[in-house]
Amino acid sequence: MMQEEALSSLSSPALLVDLDKVKRNAHRMMERCDKLGVKLRPHMKTHKTLECADIMTGGSRRCIVVSTLAEASFYADNGFDDILYAYCLPFDKVERCAALSERLELFQVLLDHPQALEQLRKRPLSDGRQWHVWMKLDCSNGRAGVLYSNPEALKLAKAIAETDGVELNGVYVHCGNSYNCRGVEEIQAVAKETTSLTLQFMEKLKALGITCKSSIGSTPSCSHPVEDMAQLSEVHPGNYTFYGAVTLLSDVQQSVIGSCSLDDVAVRVLTRVIGHCPHRNQLLIDCGWAGLSLDGAGKLPTGYAMIEGHPNLKLSAMTQEHGKVEPISGLLDYSKYPLGTMMTLIPYHSCATAVMHSEYYVFSDGRLQGKWKPTRGW
Amino acid sequence: MMQEEALSSLSSPALLVDLDKVKRNAHRMMERCDKLGVKLRPHMKTHKTLECADIMTGGSRRCIVVSTLAEASFYADNGFDDILYAYCLPFDKVERCAALSERLELFQVLLDHPQALEQLRKRPLSDGRQWHVWMKLDCSNGRAGVLYSNPEALKLAKAIAETDGVELNGVYVHCGNSYNCRGVEEIQAVAKETTSLTLQFMEKLKALGITCKSSIGSTPSCSHPVEDMAQLSEVHPGNYTFYGAVTLLSDVQQSVIGSCSLDDVAVRVLTRVIGHCPHRNQLLIDCGWAGLSLDGAGKLPTGYAMIEGHPNLKLSAMTQEHGKVEPISGLLDYSKYPLGTMMTLIPYHSCATAVMHSEYYVFSDGRLQGKWKPTRGW
Repeated sequence: MMQEEALSSLSSPALLVDLDKVKRNAHRMMERCDKLGVKLRPHMKTHKTLECADIMTGGSRRCIVVSTLAEASFYADNGFDDILYAYCLPFDKVERCAALSERLELFQVLLDHPQALEQLRKRPLSDGRQWHVWMKLDCSNGRAGVLYSNPEALKLAKAIAETDGVELNGVYVHCGNSYNCRGVEEIQAVAKETTSLTLQFMEKLKALGITCKSSIGSTPSCSHPVEDMAQLSEVHPGNYTFYGAVTLLSDVQQSVIGSCSLDDVAVRVLTRVIGHCPHRNQLLIDCGWAGLSLDGAGKLPTGYAMIEGHPNLKLSAMTQEHGKVEPISGLLDYSKYPLGTMMTLIPYHSCATAVMHSEYYVFSDGRLQGKWKPTRGW
Repeated sequence: MMQEEALSSLSSPALLVDLDKVKRNAHRMMERCDKLGVKLRPHMKTHKTLECADIMTGGSRRCIVVSTLAEASFYADNGFDDILYAYCLPFDKVERCAALSERLELFQVLLDHPQALEQLRKRPLSDGRQWHVWMKLDCSNGRAGVLYSNPEALKLAKAIAETDGVELNGVYVHCGNSYNCRGVEEIQAVAKETTSLTLQFMEKLKALGITCKSSIGSTPSCSHPVEDMAQLSEVHPGNYTFYGAVTLLSDVQQSVIGSCSLDDVAVRVLTRVIGHCPHRNQLLIDCGWAGLSLDGAGKLPTGYAMIEGHPNLKLSAMTQEHGKVEPISGLLDYSKYPLGTMMTLIPYHSCATAVMHSEYYVFSDGRLQGKWKPTRGW
C-alpha cells in the first residue's frame, strides 16, 4: 500500500497508517450509523490521536468516548467536548474527573457500583453543575457492569437518577464478546442479543419513570449492525478505523469474523530482516514484542501477525526486539531475503500494537504525509 | 515495601521501583563480578533510564550494553561512553551508527553476517577511525548469532579482523536459554556449557592468530556464575536490578529458577480495585495489558502476575485497561476488597512491564523519592 521508496526512508520498526483507508473506514461507519438513524460516538482508545479523532468526528470534535483519563484530558485540552470517560470511576481520579466536569460543556463518567455513586455524592460540583453519569450494564460480555438480570442494576440506575447533584445520562453496554464470533451471522446474533437485553432494561427503567440514553458498541457489531440497533440512542465502536487481523480472522481456524476485509486494515508495522539462521530454518526481523505486542499469543496461522505478501511465512516467536520468522512449509531460500529486506506486518490487534509506538507514520496515496503523536498513560 | 500513604497519592496503574533493592541488586552483581575477576558490562534494556545506569555503572557512565539505537543515543547524549549496541547491525541505521562511532570514544556495534560487514566496509569512518565490532555467536541460545559449530563463524571473525577500517573487539554470546531453567543447578549447567563453547571458540580464533574479548550474559547465569566464567573478558546481564517473577519462578510448576528471591524483586505495578463481579466470582482492577504487558501468557500459578500479599488471588485475564482477578479457590469476600482498594502486582517479566510505562515512581525507605523517565523507541 505504501511506496517502497517512501518506506525505505523510515527506520524500523515503525507503525504505518494508511490515511486513505482510515478515512474510508470512518466514512463508512458514519454512513452506516446515519442510515440506521443511531448516533455514532466513536471510541478513541485504539489510536489516541487528535488527527484520527478529527476524522472520526467529521471535524466536530464532539461526542467521543475515551478509555483513560489521560485521553480525556488530552482531548479536552485540544478543544474536544462531550467526552464520555467510559471506565468504571477510579477512586484515585475523582478530583480530576470533577475538574473536567467543571470545565467542559459535557464531561460524562461511568459507574457500576453504589460505592462509586457515593464518591460522586461526596464531591459536589461547583456552580450547581451536575455529574453526568452513564451506568455500565453487563449484557453477557463478561467484563465491567452490573449483570442485566441482577435486581441491583435497576436499583443502582434509580439511585443515580435520584441522587442530588448527579444525573443519569445513559446505560452503556460493551459487546466485546462479538470478538469471539466467526462470521457475520454470529456477530449479528451477539448484536441482536445485546441490543435486545439493553432495550428490555430501558423498558424496565421507563416503567420506573426513568428515561435516559442507551449505547452499545464494539467494532464487529457496528460493522454489521442489526435493525434493532436503530432503537438505541448511540453506538460506540472504536477499532474500525485501523482494524487488524483479529477483526478479520477469528481464530486459528482462520474463520473470517468479517468485520472487515483485508483491504480495510489500515495499519502495518514496518520491519526489516536482520538475521539468517539456516541452522533453524529461520529469519530474524527487527520487530519483537516491543514493536508489536504479544496480543494474539501467536495463534494466528501465521503466528503473531500476518506478513504481507508472504503467505508462507510465519512470525513464530518474539523477544523484546527480535522476531523469528519461519516458513509454514519447506525450506527458506535466503537469497530471497537478504539482510535489510523490508516487510510489513499486519498486526493481530491494532489497539495493542499502536500502544507500543509513540508516533505513527501516516501515508496517503503511497506517500508519507507526516506523523501522528498519540497520548499515553492514565 | 512502600508506605501505604505514599502509594495512595499515586494514580494507578503506576510502575513502582524500590531504589534500595535496585542498589542492593546492583551492588551484589558488581561484587560477584569483582570476586570472579570478570568485567561487568551491564545491559540497559530493562529500565532505559539514566538513574539506573548510574547505579549499575557505579557512577562511571562507562561500559554499558544497549538493545536499541535510541538507547545508545540517549546515553551518548548524557555523557555515557564505551557503549556496545548489542543488536545485529540494522541496515537502516548504519549512518546513525557511524555518527556515534565518530563522536564517542568507543561505540561498538555487533554483527553475525558477511552482508553486515560489507555495510561497514562501504561506510568508512572519518579521521581514520575504526568500526569497533563484536561478532555474535549462537552457543545454543537459539536467537541471533552464527552457530558456534558452523565453519562460517570462524571465517566471519577472520573477515572482520582483516577488513580495513574495521576492528574485531570481541565475541558476544547471550545465554537467554538460562531463562528456561529450573533451579540453580540447571542455570549453572547452561552457564558452564555456554562459557565452555565460547572459550573453545576463542581458542580456535587464537590458533588463527586472532585475539579479542569474549562476553556472555543473562541475569540467571550471572546471578549464579560458575568458576569458568572468570576466563571470559566480560559479562553483560541486565534484568538483575529489577528482577521479576520470571527470574523467580520458572513455570507453572512454580519451581524456583533461583536467580533471585522474592525479596530481591524491585518493581511492582500499583493497581486499584474498580469493580466487583459477584456473578463471575471476580474483581476488576485498573491494570490491563497496557500497564503490565501480556508476557508470561498468564501461565504463572497466579496468572499474569503475583498479587503481593494475596497468594490466593489470580490475575486470570486482561484486556487493554482491565484486569480480572479471581480466587484460586473458594468464593471472594467482597467486603475485604472495597472499590478503591490498592494492590501491588509483581510482574512476570520486568522488561516487558517497564516498556509499558513512560515514567517510574521511585521509592526509598518506603517514601516516594521522585520519578525516572526511560527512553523509548528505536
